[in-house]
Amino acid sequence: MLNSPTQEDTTAAAGRVWRNVYYISDGTAITAQTVGRSLLTQFERRYRFRDALIPFVDSEEKARKVAERLADDQSRHELPSIVFSTFVSETLDRIVRAAPGVHVAVFHEFIPRLEHELGMSAEHTRGLAHGASDFAHYTRRIDAINYALLHDDGMTTEGYSKSEIILIGISRVGKTPTSLYLALQHGIFVANYPLSSEDLAAQTLPSALRPHRRKIFGLTIQPERLQVIRQTRRPDSHYASPRQVQDEVDAAEGLMRLSGVPFLDTTKRSIEEIASTILQRHSSITAE
Amino acid sequence: MLNSPTQEDTTAAAGRVWRNVYYISDGTAITAQTVGRSLLTQFERRYRFRDALIPFVDSEEKARKVAERLADDQSRHELPSIVFSTFVSETLDRIVRAAPGVHVAVFHEFIPRLEHELGMSAEHTRGLAHGASDFAHYTRRIDAINYALLHDDGMTTEGYSKSEIILIGISRVGKTPTSLYLALQHGIFVANYPLSSEDLAAQTLPSALRPHRRKIFGLTIQPERLQVIRQTRRPDSHYASPRQVQDEVDAAEGLMRLSGVPFLDTTKRSIEEIASTILQRHSSITAE
Repeated sequence: MLNSPTQEDTTAAAGRVWRNVYYISDGTAITAQTVGRSLLTQFERRYRFRDALIPFVDSEEKARKVAERLADDQSRHELPSIVFSTFVSETLDRIVRAAPGVHVAVFHEFIPRLEHELGMSAEHTRGLAHGASDFAHYTRRIDAINYALLHDDGMTTEGYSKSEIILIGISRVGKTPTSLYLALQHGIFVANYPLSSEDLAAQTLPSALRPHRRKIFGLTIQPERLQVIRQTRRPDSHYASPRQVQDEVDAAEGLMRLSGVPFLDTTKRSIEEIASTILQRHSSITAE
Repeated sequence: MLNSPTQEDTTAAAGRVWRNVYYISDGTAITAQTVGRSLLTQFERRYRFRDALIPFVDSEEKARKVAERLADDQSRHELPSIVFSTFVSETLDRIVRAAPGVHVAVFHEFIPRLEHELGMSAEHTRGLAHGASDFAHYTRRIDAINYALLHDDGMTTEGYSKSEIILIGISRVGKTPTSLYLALQHGIFVANYPLSSEDLAAQTLPSALRPHRRKIFGLTIQPERLQVIRQTRRPDSHYASPRQVQDEVDAAEGLMRLSGVPFLDTTKRSIEEIASTILQRHSSITAE
């Protein structure tokens, strides 16, 4: 799949050059991967990236093996591999960075800077970030996931007083993925409730939700997009018909406006973007 | 809560100094937060960090407002705030970095380095990383979440041929959070199946699972830890008794060994660590 020189300047997917990318860490390598993927999306016009995740490189022996793998990789490819690493151990960092490759050692420059600014040396202990070190936080997160599962899709409205956020909206606007994301990544107790045809006809929040209005956040979507999504799930059903979808979207947005519920159009937003928007609003409410 | 100078060198939580931390980006600020949190865990011996997420700072006007907020924040605190930012726009980056604070501009140094190494200029378009730009990937992720929910806790073993990973284990070892994490973050189709008392007695995989043995990954846990977890959920039940827990763990590990199923002890591992370990193994299997 390596392309020829004549194709190098084309922007077509087929003409892009493959590059090997490694995400390496003494921990999960999640931070290395997050940074690396964010940066590499900026270069996809010309390149395609082949990922390898190498987590838990937590001994000199393992680091040397990784260095050998990078050297071996280099010997078989024309272009150097790109290596994103997040070592908290300086020794391991040094071993891996000595291997061939374009190295982006994410912590390498930032740790000394923070040590200087914060007037203390870093712990240099691996696995503090994505480890299970904070047990209370960890338990809370598991509880949040269980809460989201139990309160998914309006399965029950009991226990809403324990919720921190209640997402509402019609079917297939993104309530479930957003709830699970907020629970998993942020340990937030999120319920989600699908607006029923009765709710839409009544144009008011159901009584079970009214006491929690300040925690409610609505999701909506462009009818054209929703129609495509529903059509995939239940082809040519009433549920997926343009008329039905348009009516539901109109009624849901009307209800949310009348009830003073803030809402967000999810059409062109990823789960992360929806979650970040809700979190930002949520934290400004709780800070009031 | 700001502590007095005499407390500054104590390592006790009560004596730690509060620092304000900002995660700022023209996108979701997820990368900024991931990097910042990873780095700051290295300094928690002396500091406590108060987070604020400021996503979607995608215009000069918004960037100037953020800069004002940072200046205002600085005027009310003795110690400078710590600002992690991930701007792909150089202009916005410059505006925010001119404000008071300890700035860790994550992309600032890495983008020029990669531009140099990759021989092209970055797109400088925000939101490519955590946006919904890649529609096929996005749809796959939503489908993976739905798959994980439908195949949670052995609800059905139909559709296992579509799965990429099947997690097995006894109740409360971490199957559900791990499945959801892999679906949400990586778009992987993960089913999970709780080993029943019949399975444990028979010491073989149930027939529905046997054709998929190469996709099966087991989770186990130390009995002492599992006992605490179950005790919280159903106090003083047979389910939570030390004897029952010990028997189940022994039988499950025996079954997995006999069946040649690789397994992992989740006791001291976070969801991320479990997922990274499984992914690493999964990718080495699929690469075979």
